[in-house]
Amino acid sequence: MSDALVIFTPSGKRGRFPLGTPVLTAARQLGVDLDSVCGGRGICSKCQITPGYGEFSKHGVTVAPNALSEWNAVEQRYKDKRGLIEGRRLGCQAQVMGDVVIDVPAESQVHRQVVRKAATARAISMDPATRLYFVEVEEPDMHEPSGDFERLAKALRTEWEIPEITAGLEVLRKLQPVLRQGKWRVTVALNKDHRAGPHRVLDIWPGLYEGGLYGLAVDLGSTTIAAHLCDLRTGDVVLSSGIMNPQIRFGEDLMSRVSYAMMNPGGDVEMTRTVREGMDALIADLAREAQITAREIMEAVIVCNPVMHHLFLGIDPVELGQAPFALATSDALTLDARELGLNAMNAAARAYLLPCIAGHVGADAAAVALSESPETSDDLVLVVDVGTNAEILLGDKRRVLACSSPTGPAFEGAQISSGQRAAPGAIERIEIDAVTKEPRFRVIGCDLWSDDPAFAEATAQTGITGICGSGIIEAVAEMRMAGLVDGSGLIGSEAQTGTWRCQPEGRTHAYLIHDASATGGPRITVTQGDIRAIQLAKSALYAGARLLMDEIGTDSVDRVVLAGAFGAHISPKHAMVLGMIPDAHLDKVTSAGNAAGTGARIALCNLAARAGIEATVKRIHKVETAIEPRFQEHFVNANALPHAVDTFPELAKIVTLPELSFNSGGGDGDGGRRKRRRG
Amino acid sequence: MSDALVIFTPSGKRGRFPLGTPVLTAARQLGVDLDSVCGGRGICSKCQITPGYGEFSKHGVTVAPNALSEWNAVEQRYKDKRGLIEGRRLGCQAQVMGDVVIDVPAESQVHRQVVRKAATARAISMDPATRLYFVEVEEPDMHEPSGDFERLAKALRTEWEIPEITAGLEVLRKLQPVLRQGKWRVTVALNKDHRAGPHRVLDIWPGLYEGGLYGLAVDLGSTTIAAHLCDLRTGDVVLSSGIMNPQIRFGEDLMSRVSYAMMNPGGDVEMTRTVREGMDALIADLAREAQITAREIMEAVIVCNPVMHHLFLGIDPVELGQAPFALATSDALTLDARELGLNAMNAAARAYLLPCIAGHVGADAAAVALSESPETSDDLVLVVDVGTNAEILLGDKRRVLACSSPTGPAFEGAQISSGQRAAPGAIERIEIDAVTKEPRFRVIGCDLWSDDPAFAEATAQTGITGICGSGIIEAVAEMRMAGLVDGSGLIGSEAQTGTWRCQPEGRTHAYLIHDASATGGPRITVTQGDIRAIQLAKSALYAGARLLMDEIGTDSVDRVVLAGAFGAHISPKHAMVLGMIPDAHLDKVTSAGNAAGTGARIALCNLAARAGIEATVKRIHKVETAIEPRFQEHFVNANALPHAVDTFPELAKIVTLPELSFNSGGGDGDGGRRKRRRG
Repeated sequence: MSDALVIFTPSGKRGRFPLGTPVLTAARQLGVDLDSVCGGRGICSKCQITPGYGEFSKHGVTVAPNALSEWNAVEQRYKDKRGLIEGRRLGCQAQVMGDVVIDVPAESQVHRQVVRKAATARAISMDPATRLYFVEVEEPDMHEPSGDFERLAKALRTEWEIPEITAGLEVLRKLQPVLRQGKWRVTVALNKDHRAGPHRVLDIWPGLYEGGLYGLAVDLGSTTIAAHLCDLRTGDVVLSSGIMNPQIRFGEDLMSRVSYAMMNPGGDVEMTRTVREGMDALIADLAREAQITAREIMEAVIVCNPVMHHLFLGIDPVELGQAPFALATSDALTLDARELGLNAMNAAARAYLLPCIAGHVGADAAAVALSESPETSDDLVLVVDVGTNAEILLGDKRRVLACSSPTGPAFEGAQISSGQRAAPGAIERIEIDAVTKEPRFRVIGCDLWSDDPAFAEATAQTGITGICGSGIIEAVAEMRMAGLVDGSGLIGSEAQTGTWRCQPEGRTHAYLIHDASATGGPRITVTQGDIRAIQLAKSALYAGARLLMDEIGTDSVDRVVLAGAFGAHISPKHAMVLGMIPDAHLDKVTSAGNAAGTGARIALCNLAARAGIEATVKRIHKVETAIEPRFQEHFVNANALPHAVDTFPELAKIVTLPELSFNSGGGDGDGGRRKRRRG
Repeated sequence: MSDALVIFTPSGKRGRFPLGTPVLTAARQLGVDLDSVCGGRGICSKCQITPGYGEFSKHGVTVAPNALSEWNAVEQRYKDKRGLIEGRRLGCQAQVMGDVVIDVPAESQVHRQVVRKAATARAISMDPATRLYFVEVEEPDMHEPSGDFERLAKALRTEWEIPEITAGLEVLRKLQPVLRQGKWRVTVALNKDHRAGPHRVLDIWPGLYEGGLYGLAVDLGSTTIAAHLCDLRTGDVVLSSGIMNPQIRFGEDLMSRVSYAMMNPGGDVEMTRTVREGMDALIADLAREAQITAREIMEAVIVCNPVMHHLFLGIDPVELGQAPFALATSDALTLDARELGLNAMNAAARAYLLPCIAGHVGADAAAVALSESPETSDDLVLVVDVGTNAEILLGDKRRVLACSSPTGPAFEGAQISSGQRAAPGAIERIEIDAVTKEPRFRVIGCDLWSDDPAFAEATAQTGITGICGSGIIEAVAEMRMAGLVDGSGLIGSEAQTGTWRCQPEGRTHAYLIHDASATGGPRITVTQGDIRAIQLAKSALYAGARLLMDEIGTDSVDRVVLAGAFGAHISPKHAMVLGMIPDAHLDKVTSAGNAAGTGARIALCNLAARAGIEATVKRIHKVETAIEPRFQEHFVNANALPHAVDTFPELAKIVTLPELSFNSGGGDGDGGRRKRRRG
C-alpha cells in the first residue's frame, strides 16, 4: 500500500494520499478548514486534530492503531511547554501511514462558527479581515539586493499565497529590527480589503506572536456609544461597554445637533472632536478593563445613523437637515483609525464604516439588515430598531424597503419627567394591578420586585432614581391595561380611576409610582406630558412601518423582529399594547437584541459579509418619510392607544383593556385604530 | 454629401465624419491628442484648434471657407472675455461642414512635448498623474438617494471614463458646499496611480477651476536639497531653488549620519524631523516666491540616496551602515505628502519616491537612469553622477549595471582647506598659465575673470570667499597641467616649479591662488591635503566605474555622460585630466546637468515613466563596491594623476602634461595609470 484513505470530520471530505503525507497537507489539498499560523512548522499548534481509531462503519473504514506516524519530539516539546488535550495530535507533524478518520475540533477550524449572542442564536462564520501569518523571510543578500519589505512580501506570496502587500510608515519603521530580532521568522497581522487591493501589514512581531488580536464592533448612537471587544481569532465577545454619547450636550436628538452645526460656526468641528474623544476613551476603558494593550486592537467596525456618520467623519451634517437630505458619501468606507482620532488602538488599525442606505437611514440600519437578513426571508418580515431614531426594514427575498422615523429620545427615557438613562437605580420593569391599581417594579441592578420584603435593603445602595426607556413604555402600557389611561391617552382622575395615585398636576393628572420625597428622595410619576411624548414616538414608529406596508401593498406582516432598545428591554406584549408596531401574532414577534451591534460584529468577523451588505444596501428601496404626505396621515391616525381586545385577540388571554374615555367629549379611543385599518 | 474628411495635423490622423460633428468629437474618435477640461462645454478653451483653408496638395484636399460651422456665440463670449488668437476656433464649438484640415497647436495637446532643460535637449511627453476634470454632477434625488460623492463618481465615469475614485476625509469635508456653490458643476483634481487602484480626488473647486496646478521634482541630496516647481499643465519649470540639507549638522557624509543614528538614541528621529522641516520650508519658499498657494501644489516626486530615503521616511538607517546593507524597502512608494511632514502643499497632495536600486544605490541613481535611459542605448554608456556619493551606471540595451562609490564631500568643496559650498564669492573656474604659473579665476555671481580690470569692483560686494567643488577640481587639474603637481599628486617647491606661489606649508607645499589677508580677507590656497582629498575622491569614482567595466568585461566605454555637480559645473576636460573617469574620446563625453532632478521631473510629468523606471530598476544588475576586493585594488591603482598625453591623445591638442616627479624616489606619476590599463 503506497497511499491511504483520509477522511476528515465533521466535513466528510476525503481523499487518498501517499504514505508520509502530513495531515495538514492532506487537509489543505482537500480544502478542509484546518487552521495554521506557522505554516506547518510545529510551533503555533493551531492545527490540532483528533485521529479516530477502530471501526468506522459509517465511513466504511477500519483505522489501525498505527494509521498515523508516531508521536514525535516536536509534539512532545509542545505538550511539555503548553499542554495538549489527550488524544490530540499536531496536524503538521502527524503523517498519514494508513487509512484514517481525522476529526477537526472547532477550535482548529479557521472558519469556525461562533454563536451570536442574540435571542435567535445564529452563527457567524469566522473569516475576519485581520489575520496572523507566521513567515520565514529570506535574509538579505548583497549580491541580489532587495528591500526587507520586498522579501517579506515574497515570503508571504510563497508560503501563504498572499499576492501583494502594502504597509504604512509605522510598520516600515519597525520592520528591520523585528526581522533581525526574530532571526528572520516573524508574525505579521495582515488586513485584507474585501474589495480589490493589496493586503495591508498592520503589525509585525519577532517569532511566533502569541499575544492578542482584537477588534471592535461599535454602535455609535445619538444617545449612547456601545462597543463590543471581540477576539478576532475566536469571534468571542470579550467585553462590552457603553457610554453616553458626549455630543448629547449639543442637543438630544439628531436634528438639534444639525441645528447646532448650522447656528454655530465651527460647531460641527466641535461635535466631531467630542464624539471622537468619547469613542477613543471608551476604547481605552475597554482595553484597560480587558487587560489588553492598544496595540492588540487591530480593527473597528462602526455603525451609526447618517448624522453621526457625518459628524464622526468630520463632515458638516447641514445637508442632512433639509430636503433632499443628501449624504456627502453613502458607500462603505475603510479608513485608518488614527484619521478618526482613535488612538487607543494599534497605530495602523483600520476602521470600517458600513454603507448608509439613505439620508435618514444609516449604516446602523444597514447593520440591522446584515444581522437580520430580510433579503433572504421567505415570509414578509418587519424589522424595527428603535433608538432616538427608528430604523425600519420591511421585506422578503423579493424586495426590501427601508425608512427611518424620527421617534425622538422618549423611548430612551429622555424628555420624560422622571426619565433617565438605563443605569442602576432606574425603573426598568413595572406591573400595575388591574384591581388595586397598585404598581410594583424592578430597578436596574436588582433582581427583586419592589413588593419583595428584601427590596428596600437590596436597593439601598443605588436608590430608586427614575424611569428608563423600557420602564416608561411598560408604565404607559400597564396604565392603559389597568384602566388608568383612556384610548386617547388621557390619564383619569382619582374619581375616574379609583386610585389615589392618580393625582392632579396642573390641568391634567399624573400617576404616582414611587414617592421618596419624605426622605429627600425623588417623586417618580408618569405625567400627562410623558404619555403624550410616548404617543408621539410610537405614532412616528407606527407610521413609518405603515408607510412601508403601503409601498409594498400589504395590510399585515408575517413576522416582526424587534431590535435595539426594544430587543434588549421592551417586552413585545407592551409594545403591542401601545400600538407601537403593526398587528402580528404574538408568537411571530421576536427580539433580536442589539441587531445593529450584531451586524457590526458580523462585519468584523466575516469579510464576505462586508461585500454582502454593500451589495444588499444598493438593492434596498429607500422610502423618505419626511416628504411623504401619507406619513403625516398615518402619524396622526396612530396617536391613539389601541383597544387591545379589538385588534389583538391573542392579547385577550392576558388582559382585557377597559373601554374607557376620560374625555368630556367621549372616546376617540379606537377611532385612530379604525382609521389605520383602512390605510 | 452627408459626411466629410477631417485631417488633423501634426498627427496626420484622418477620418470621415457626419456633417455637424464637433471637431473635438472627431478628434476624440480618431485618438487625436486634443485637450479639454470642461468636456466640450465651451468654457475651458483648452480645445483650441486652427483650421486651414484652401489647397492642401500634400493631403489631397481643398478646404472651402465654410468647411467649419460659423463662429458662434460661445466662441465670441470666450473671445470677449479672455481673448483668442486670430484664426483659432474652439474645437467643441466648431462643427465639421466639409472636408477640412485642422491643426492642433502645441498648447492644445494633452501630451505635448516639453523640452528638457538639460544640455542634451530631449523632450518629456506630458502625461502627469494629476489632472483636472470639469464635471456636471446630478443633483440629489431623495427618491433615489445616493451620496454626493457617489454621484460625483458616476459623473466622472460617464463623462470621463474614470472607472473608480476615492477621496480622503479632507475632500469629503468640502464636497457638499463646493458642489452647491458650483451649482453642481465642479472641477476636480484627480491623481491616478500608475499601478492598479482608483483615481484619488485631491481637491475640488466650484465651477471651472482656473487656478494653478503644480508639482515638485525634488532631489534630496546629502548636502543639498534642490526642488523644481513645475506647472503640471504645461510641464514648464516655473521656479527652482535649493537649500543646504539641514541634516548636515549631524555629519557631512552619509556614514557619519548613520553613525549619529547608531550612537544617539532617537538620533534618527531627530534627523528625520530636521530633513522634513527643511524640505517643507524649501517648498514654502518656492510657493511664496512663485506667488502661488500651498493648495495649488498637488504632488512631489522625490529622489534621494538610500540613507536619505530612509531618514526622510523615518526609518532608522542603521542597516545601511553595515553589510549586507539591507534596505527596509526598495520599491517605489506613493504616500500622502502630509505623512512626510510636507505641510506647504495641498492637504491631499501625494508624494512619489522612486525605487532604490540597492543599499548603496538609491532612488537618485534610479532617477539618473530614468533621465539618461542607458537601458535603451545602442552603444556602451557610462553615466556618472557625483554628489557626496557617486552613482555610476554602465550599460546598453542588453544589460545595465549600477554601483555607488563613496567619494566623500570633496567634490562638493567640503573637507577642502579653502573649500566652501557653491555660493556667490566662491571660485568656480580657474586657469593657470603654463609659462608664468599665474592663476586667473572667476567667482560665482560675476562673469568677469579675475584679470579683468573691472573684476575687483564687480566682486566688491561678495568678496572672494573660497573655492567651491568645481573650482577645486579645476584648480588641481590646472596645477597638474601647469607642472605644479607631479603624477603622484605632490606639489612642488618654489625651486621645483619656478613660482613663488608654491609656498612651504608644514612639511609640504601649498599653491597660493588669492591673498586678501592684508585687508583682513581670506588667503586662498590649494594645499597638499586638498590634493590628497581630491585624489581619494577621484580614485573612488574611477574604481567604481572600473569595477562595472570589469563586470561587463570591457576595457573601454563608448560614451560618458557626466551628471550632477559634474554636468552642472565641472568641465569634462578637467575631469579627464584628473583621471576621474575612464578613457573616452572627448567628443563622446557629454554633460547631462542635474540628471537626478531631471529624472524626478520626468516621473512628475509622465505617469508611464514611473512604471517604466520601476521595471527598469528590477532589471539593473547591482554591484556592491564595499565588499568587492577589486574595488580596493582599482582604488589604490587610480590614485595617481595621469599623464595626459599618454592616455588622452586628443588632449594633446589642448595641453601637454610635463612628466614631472617631485618625489625624491622618482615618479610613480603614471605607474598608476599603467596598472589601471592592465585591469
